[in-house]
Amino acid sequence: MTTLNILKIGGNVLADTAQLSQALNLFAQYPGPAILVHGGGRRASEILSALGHTPKMINGRRITDEAALEVVTMVYAGSLNKQLVAGLQARSCNAIGLSGADGNLIRAHKRIVKDIDYGYAGDIDEIDAAGFQALLEAGFRPVCCAITHDKQGQLLNTNADTIAASIAVALADRYQVVLNYCFEKTGVLLDAEQDDSVIPKIDSSYYQELKAQGVVHSGMLPKLDNAFGALGQGVSSVRVGNLSSLKDGSATQLTR
Amino acid sequence: MTTLNILKIGGNVLADTAQLSQALNLFAQYPGPAILVHGGGRRASEILSALGHTPKMINGRRITDEAALEVVTMVYAGSLNKQLVAGLQARSCNAIGLSGADGNLIRAHKRIVKDIDYGYAGDIDEIDAAGFQALLEAGFRPVCCAITHDKQGQLLNTNADTIAASIAVALADRYQVVLNYCFEKTGVLLDAEQDDSVIPKIDSSYYQELKAQGVVHSGMLPKLDNAFGALGQGVSSVRVGNLSSLKDGSATQLTR
Repeated sequence: MTTLNILKIGGNVLADTAQLSQALNLFAQYPGPAILVHGGGRRASEILSALGHTPKMINGRRITDEAALEVVTMVYAGSLNKQLVAGLQARSCNAIGLSGADGNLIRAHKRIVKDIDYGYAGDIDEIDAAGFQALLEAGFRPVCCAITHDKQGQLLNTNADTIAASIAVALADRYQVVLNYCFEKTGVLLDAEQDDSVIPKIDSSYYQELKAQGVVHSGMLPKLDNAFGALGQGVSSVRVGNLSSLKDGSATQLTR
Repeated sequence: MTTLNILKIGGNVLADTAQLSQALNLFAQYPGPAILVHGGGRRASEILSALGHTPKMINGRRITDEAALEVVTMVYAGSLNKQLVAGLQARSCNAIGLSGADGNLIRAHKRIVKDIDYGYAGDIDEIDAAGFQALLEAGFRPVCCAITHDKQGQLLNTNADTIAASIAVALADRYQVVLNYCFEKTGVLLDAEQDDSVIPKIDSSYYQELKAQGVVHSGMLPKLDNAFGALGQGVSSVRVGNLSSLKDGSATQLTR
């Protein structure tokens, strides 16, 4: 099967010109089909504030009221997505920017209210794997922002890590999927204070050990649980690192 | 040849919920391949003002400085485009939202400064007709906003009427193209004060007469010159009217 690289980048990369350029270079250099997934929280919060709204977050997740939804749609699907696409086109990478509404590629539902009302937050129902494959085979490289829809006309704000993992899983029986998570650190570290303590490879049983030892905790836990979940559903491998370690192959590799 | 409908809608339609819904119904009902092109000036000006900038216009054309470019990209390619796409998907119309940067579909250059510096305004160099055809044949309905790029990484603000006409011309040897311009009036009127004085059909020689008689003047002149230009370059017919006259076929039809 053909290898498909999926690269997820976050708001910190997008906010920094040098890092953004590195990320575009990394993505443009994948030899085969590839999909870029991006978040972009910071600029949305700035615009919201400038428009006189107060960004509301609970546990690092945005509460998406109507004003916030307009702004995240403007910033994620508009300015950030098109900036990425134009930057990739300048690198002769045939990027096509997409939200989940485009081509009905990612259908979601408005998150059910339990303790917290997240507003227009979307939980994914279905990825159109055939639609993504059609675009990839037509020579396009999808650049997906963190906006989905419910196919009833409602746009929804959806976590970009989850979008990346869901696309990876949905395409796992069509491609050998490598999911690349870009974050601040060079990889999963044995010692959080030591940037050179990257663990090269972690399989599920070693992951259980690391969790038991408390090496993996707090912010890394949902990310890695998510990644091992994707591996359990057919994704070939997951790489976790920053732009340079993902590029030179020294990022942590997660396997089943 | 298969008929391709191209519908251009402007900012006034987008700003009105009832009209927007009518426009989506009209577009969703075209039987064959179709492309929607939209402007959207008003909301961009509101957001610019809210962010503390002064929208600058000369002769009805926006002066696109850096702040204005970010805002038009956010509003046109982001909130408006995705709202249209989500609304069409709710009508089971497989819309895919695009700027000219996406798939490198519309390449432009920054307008050369003569008397007026329009800033990041783009004049179109090339439409990728094969790219549009590939998307149409894959079953997608492109929804194009008025943003293009120069393939060097720069996004550009481009007139939506011109984008619609340029796409129509570029696709004229692949499809029988019908270009539908939606504006406020029911059609080209013999008497501007009389909504029921729509001229049903205008060919090039009749158009010259109407111009000589002063029936067509001011705002209508560039629109119709543009339309007859497209007809001269292979477009089959151009229809000019509002949502209801375009729907029931009573809009003015322009032919060679």
